[in-house]
Amino acid sequence: MSKLKITMCQIEVVDNKDENLEKAKSMIIESKDKGADIAILPEMFNCPHENEKFVQYSESRYNSITLDSISNIAKELNIHVLVGSIPELVVEEENNEKIYNTSFFFDDNGGLLGFHRKLHLFDIDIKDNIYFKESDTLSSGDEIIVIDTKFGKFTIAICFDMRFPELSRIMALKRAIILVFPRAFNLTTGPIYWKLLLRSRALDNQVFTIGVSPSLNKKQNYTTYGHSLISNPFAEVIAEVGSYEELIIAEIDLNEIVIVREELPLIKNRRTDLYQLKF
Amino acid sequence: MSKLKITMCQIEVVDNKDENLEKAKSMIIESKDKGADIAILPEMFNCPHENEKFVQYSESRYNSITLDSISNIAKELNIHVLVGSIPELVVEEENNEKIYNTSFFFDDNGGLLGFHRKLHLFDIDIKDNIYFKESDTLSSGDEIIVIDTKFGKFTIAICFDMRFPELSRIMALKRAIILVFPRAFNLTTGPIYWKLLLRSRALDNQVFTIGVSPSLNKKQNYTTYGHSLISNPFAEVIAEVGSYEELIIAEIDLNEIVIVREELPLIKNRRTDLYQLKF
Repeated sequence: MSKLKITMCQIEVVDNKDENLEKAKSMIIESKDKGADIAILPEMFNCPHENEKFVQYSESRYNSITLDSISNIAKELNIHVLVGSIPELVVEEENNEKIYNTSFFFDDNGGLLGFHRKLHLFDIDIKDNIYFKESDTLSSGDEIIVIDTKFGKFTIAICFDMRFPELSRIMALKRAIILVFPRAFNLTTGPIYWKLLLRSRALDNQVFTIGVSPSLNKKQNYTTYGHSLISNPFAEVIAEVGSYEELIIAEIDLNEIVIVREELPLIKNRRTDLYQLKF
Repeated sequence: MSKLKITMCQIEVVDNKDENLEKAKSMIIESKDKGADIAILPEMFNCPHENEKFVQYSESRYNSITLDSISNIAKELNIHVLVGSIPELVVEEENNEKIYNTSFFFDDNGGLLGFHRKLHLFDIDIKDNIYFKESDTLSSGDEIIVIDTKFGKFTIAICFDMRFPELSRIMALKRAIILVFPRAFNLTTGPIYWKLLLRSRALDNQVFTIGVSPSLNKKQNYTTYGHSLISNPFAEVIAEVGSYEELIIAEIDLNEIVIVREELPLIKNRRTDLYQLKF
């Protein structure tokens, strides 16, 4: 199966978990109506992007209204759903609580294919402009995952994770062909870097990259840039949303990966006698 | 010294070594007249980009009209000159001859600061469009170099070398702050990838990147895209040439590297507990 249809669900996240979840479900239904194989939700799709909200909205994956709802609708509609992320509560020994920024990928039978915990937390401090430290609240994951699906190997990296070229390269070396980046770039970094990063990661690694963001919502403290987009392995943007709430469907042809790698085998041409990425 | 002036000498390379050399010298003089600290010449500035010409035009660095001329003018004018590259002849034991695609960097006293031999040879075979294999003629270098200058640490990577994110990252880890990419992207790959790659390498590694190409010359078999450009560490293009022969001067402020790394320390935020680049 070389072609598949993917929707990017650019939700306007509000400060109400139920409303966010209802919006997500309606977009998954719309995705199915449009013929999508996979619906992708943005980073923190059910929760405003603020440290105190992460705590308040967090759920254990073993007892999660959000994940149960998504799993159920995936099964009911027979559609894959990649949950960009939610704040995941993990209670460790001695009741030590941690919160991760975690993606979950459900197959069309509602089964959990895999999950990814954000590896690189976003701590930024631009003088007189923006201060935001995720590490004030969140913990970082410790595993680089690749998820097998019937469409091919997917991998997920959340927002700031994409700033590190090593990570995308490792994912390609682990034979992932679709790199999904749920993210919430802000209005400072988004317009400059977002498209550039998605295109360059696709080009360097000869893979598809998909970035899915919440829409711009001026009522939130942390205003996101939107512009969910898909780049093919030739660094061509094949679908792009604007700043506001919208669902876009795009068909991707995985055969393009085969073509570009035949024409110019970058992975094979690395000088592994001079450098190696150990992971 | 945080600011320096650099010229990109986008020469129209012709099939005549003397003419190319004279053009380079006149552009170095113009660079000095404009107040440049460093003049940068493109990849294969003295030789058409064809395998048989590489053989015909090659020179040993111990007996090189080209390099002697450049060294002399650098000393005479008191200007640094980075020779994008020439075909370098190396005669090994038993008279085994090799040709490398090699950059040379001269200081303002005419002394050789260092050289870089292209590490990744460009072999491309796009069906019904372009066939070109450098490895039919050239040998590849075996060393990732960093060159100390009074302005800071420079490094050089030639054309196809820039397609490998590992290499630019290693250069940044070796504390290079200016990555120079002499190159001759063709009209197929240039318009799509050239600016994207220079900007993303600058952004990922929080360095300046400078790409210097020969100009478009429709009389040559291998027609180059031109568009020599400089990106600052914010991925902003601060100078860009068009397709034709031209010299552009730009001032770069190395303090921008300090600022961007303070705001968002990417190098420091790598998860070296999860991955490491060995070199």
